[in-house]
Amino acid sequence: MFEQLGLIGCGLMGGSFALALKRAKLVKRVVGYSKSPSTTERARQLGVIDVAAPSALLAVSGADLVLVAVPVAASEATFKAIRHGVSSDTLVMDVGSTKGDVIEAARRGLQTQFASFVPAHPIAGKEVAGVEHAEASLFDGRQVILTPTKTTLRSNVQRATQLWTAVGAQVLTMTPQEHDSAFAAVSHLPHLLAFAFINGIAEQPDGARMLERGGTGFRDFSRIAASDPAVWRDILLANREQVLLQSQAFRKTLMQFEALLAAGDAQALEEAIEAARRTRSQWRG
Amino acid sequence: MFEQLGLIGCGLMGGSFALALKRAKLVKRVVGYSKSPSTTERARQLGVIDVAAPSALLAVSGADLVLVAVPVAASEATFKAIRHGVSSDTLVMDVGSTKGDVIEAARRGLQTQFASFVPAHPIAGKEVAGVEHAEASLFDGRQVILTPTKTTLRSNVQRATQLWTAVGAQVLTMTPQEHDSAFAAVSHLPHLLAFAFINGIAEQPDGARMLERGGTGFRDFSRIAASDPAVWRDILLANREQVLLQSQAFRKTLMQFEALLAAGDAQALEEAIEAARRTRSQWRG
Repeated sequence: MFEQLGLIGCGLMGGSFALALKRAKLVKRVVGYSKSPSTTERARQLGVIDVAAPSALLAVSGADLVLVAVPVAASEATFKAIRHGVSSDTLVMDVGSTKGDVIEAARRGLQTQFASFVPAHPIAGKEVAGVEHAEASLFDGRQVILTPTKTTLRSNVQRATQLWTAVGAQVLTMTPQEHDSAFAAVSHLPHLLAFAFINGIAEQPDGARMLERGGTGFRDFSRIAASDPAVWRDILLANREQVLLQSQAFRKTLMQFEALLAAGDAQALEEAIEAARRTRSQWRG
Repeated sequence: MFEQLGLIGCGLMGGSFALALKRAKLVKRVVGYSKSPSTTERARQLGVIDVAAPSALLAVSGADLVLVAVPVAASEATFKAIRHGVSSDTLVMDVGSTKGDVIEAARRGLQTQFASFVPAHPIAGKEVAGVEHAEASLFDGRQVILTPTKTTLRSNVQRATQLWTAVGAQVLTMTPQEHDSAFAAVSHLPHLLAFAFINGIAEQPDGARMLERGGTGFRDFSRIAASDPAVWRDILLANREQVLLQSQAFRKTLMQFEALLAAGDAQALEEAIEAARRTRSQWRG
C-alpha cells in the first residue's frame, strides 16, 4: 500500500494507472499535475486524481510513488522539475515507449536520485487520448516491460514488479538495449512503413483513386498510419538509431524480393513467401 | 436466367459464384470441373455443382455462362482447353486478381472467341480456401471490377454487369491498366511489404524474441503475411511490372522518412506523419 501517488501527466496512461491503483486499493491519495491546468482539473473532476497540484514538484512532495506519464520528449525537464521531491525511498517510474533515451533523461534530470527510477513500458493503450478515456482495466492482462540499469535499486524493481502484477499486468524484465531494438523492429518500424506506404500512394497522380480500391488487407495493414503524429514523431526520434537500422535491414529484404520478382524466379519467390507465412502463422497473436 | 453455368475451378471463389447464382435463381444447371477429381466430387456432394464433368471442355459444352476460377498461372491452358466449347453467345468471365496478364492469356487461348470474354475481379475472399468454405453470400455488398478491352462484346459487358448486380455485388468498370496499377498499389504492394517485414525480422539473430514483443499494431499490420504462398507468388509475378514500380516508389518515400529521422528534423517528420494520418483517417474503410 502506497501513501501517495504523485502523478505527472494526467492523460490516458497516467489516469488509467491512477484508477488501476485505486481499484486495487494500493494507494491512499493521488496528487496530480499536468502541464495544462484544464487537464489537471478535468482529472480531478473525474475522480482520477484526488488533489490537483500547481506544479510537478508539489505533486511529488510527500509521494512514495511517482509516475511520469508525459511525452518522451518532455522527460528530462520533468525529471529535473521533480528531483528535489524524490528521495531514496521513492519509487519513480515512467511509461515511455522507448527506454534508452528516457534513461539518459532520468540520469541527467534525477542526478543523485537516479537509482530510485525504474524504467517501465506498459504495452497498453487506446486509439484515443485524454483522461476522459482512462480506465482502471487498461493494464489487465497486458505486458509491462521493466528495463532496470546496473544502478537501479533492486528493491524498487521488486516493488515495481509487485505493483504492476497487482494491477493485472504481466511483468517482463529486459535490458534497455534489448527493449529498444525489439520495439524498433515490431512496433516503430511498422509505423514508419505504414506512414511511408500511405504517403507513397497519396503522392501519385492517380493516388486518390487508387486508395478507393483498398480492401480489408489494405485496411488492416495501414490502420496504424492514422496514429498520433506528435507521439510518433517523438518515439521515432527517441529511438532513431535502432529504427534506422531496422528500416535499412527491411529495405534490404524488400530488394531481395524485388530481385526475385524481376528475375521471374517463381520457386524462390514462393519459398520466401512461405517463410513469412510460416513465421506469421506461428505467431501467438 | 442462364441455362447452364460451366464452372472451371470448383474452389472458394468458383463455388461461391455457383451458390450465389443458385440463390438468385439465375441458373438452371451447374456443370463443374476441377483439376483434382476429388475437388469436383466434393463440390457435387455439397450441392455446389449439379454435374461433375470429366474435362474442362465438357463442362462448358452447352453452357451459356462460363466462369474460369483457376489460379492466374493456369489461365492460358484453361482458355485453350475450353475454346471449342465457347460460342459468340457464351458469356465467359474469370475472377483473377490481375487483369493484363489474364487478358493476354484469354486472347491467346480463346482466339476467335476472345470477344466473349469479360475480365472480372470480385474483391471478395476469405482467409481459408476450398469449396467447403464456399457460400452464396460471398459477394454481398462487395465490389466487382470489370475490365473490358476494345474488342469485348458490349452486350456481354452488360450481361456481366446485370449478373454481378443480381448476386449482390457493386459493379465498377475500368481499364485493365487502371486496375493493375491501382491493385499493385493498394493490394499487391502491402502483401510484398508484409512478407519482407516478417522475413526481415525473423532472419535477425534475436528475431524470434523480438517477434514475441509484437502487440496489436504488429498483429494487424502483418496479418496478410500469412496469405497463401502459391496464390501470392502468382499474383505478384502476373503483375510484376506494376508491383516493381510501386515497390521502388515506396522505397523512395521510406528513404525520405529515414533522411528526416537521421537529420533529427522533428517538424518535417511530424508533417509527413500528419499527411499520412490525414489520408488514412479520411479513407472510407
